Amino acid sequence: MIEYIRDGREIYRRSFATIRAEAALDGMPADVAGVAVRMIHSCGMVDLVDDLAYSPDVVRSAREALNAGAPVLCDAEMVAAGVTRRRLPADNEILCTLSDPAVPGLAERLGTTRSAAAMELWRPRLDGAVVAIGNAPTCLFRLLELVEQGAGVPAAVLGIPVGFIGAVESKQALASHPRGLEHLVVHGRRGGSAMTVAAINAIASEEE
Amino acid sequence: MIEYIRDGREIYRRSFATIRAEAALDGMPADVAGVAVRMIHSCGMVDLVDDLAYSPDVVRSAREALNAGAPVLCDAEMVAAGVTRRRLPADNEILCTLSDPAVPGLAERLGTTRSAAAMELWRPRLDGAVVAIGNAPTCLFRLLELVEQGAGVPAAVLGIPVGFIGAVESKQALASHPRGLEHLVVHGRRGGSAMTVAAINAIASEEE
Repeated sequence: MIEYIRDGREIYRRSFATIRAEAALDGMPADVAGVAVRMIHSCGMVDLVDDLAYSPDVVRSAREALNAGAPVLCDAEMVAAGVTRRRLPADNEILCTLSDPAVPGLAERLGTTRSAAAMELWRPRLDGAVVAIGNAPTCLFRLLELVEQGAGVPAAVLGIPVGFIGAVESKQALASHPRGLEHLVVHGRRGGSAMTVAAINAIASEEE
Repeated sequence: MIEYIRDGREIYRRSFATIRAEAALDGMPADVAGVAVRMIHSCGMVDLVDDLAYSPDVVRSAREALNAGAPVLCDAEMVAAGVTRRRLPADNEILCTLSDPAVPGLAERLGTTRSAAAMELWRPRLDGAVVAIGNAPTCLFRLLELVEQGAGVPAAVLGIPVGFIGAVESKQALASHPRGLEHLVVHGRRGGSAMTVAAINAIASEEE
């Protein structure tokens, strides 16, 4: 018989206490720190805060948008699948257009990845939305192009793509964007769907 | 206009080349190295190999099981959602029982987390299955209990739970299990659904 803690609430309590004890959250706005805690929880790395960058009002802006019924636009099915529906304040729509049958044709016509092409279908929903990019750097680049073309301004952009080609540069482009988009990014190569989902879930509800 | 690579194939090619140039894959069996490359791709961290441990035949065993039609048993919906169906060799079933209506009652009766209680429903499918645990350490502990109780022996166990309470210990328990289960683990706190999905997708098909 292996001994381990089986009480889910106690596991959460001890996990978040460990994170708050170890992570350098000082100086962060309280609402951003709350989101950082859940992101750290999703990846097991307290040094994630070293790479975290944000506009100070990003969490407030995203929460106001969700409360007002804004959709969450996701670049990957795994991001959409991970959002805890009961945490959402207004039964908000979680939209991922990657599997839409129009996407392969769009990708060929636009000469870009399917992930980026799928965002053409975001156009009517982009203004005021919460955008969560947790996979493809090309999506984050494409988002900035859409904004520059006047397709709308999201209420907040979670820019957390992962990887070796374009991830670093796309997150730098978001954080230094001249339009001053409300944003939260994880600089560097780290990122991914799990920490992106954690950020959405933390923004959707302050419940730990 | 921002300049970036828009060709999905070229992004993959350069990503995997970067990983193979930077990651310490020497000495690994070739099939495990292939899986490690995709796991690194999913998290952006080439030092993931420092924490990787495995039985030498784990990938072969998992592949043979999938080719023979074995199901993939997942602890989290995000893991199940991330598996690329077209990579599976035998239209294998991807099973996550966490949302089964029986689970909350089981968790209360067994005095454990819902994630661990959901595994009671795995019993008839456990023998010869590929098990993918990418979220809850209690699931990995519970799996070892099920095996000890004679519930069946999986063909391979991907033990990649993440976090601060039980993750380290559960992965140590799997890697040192006296039954010598075929296993692949990421020691330490790191883990999660994204790298677990990457491991399944890499095992399911050698296509990069």
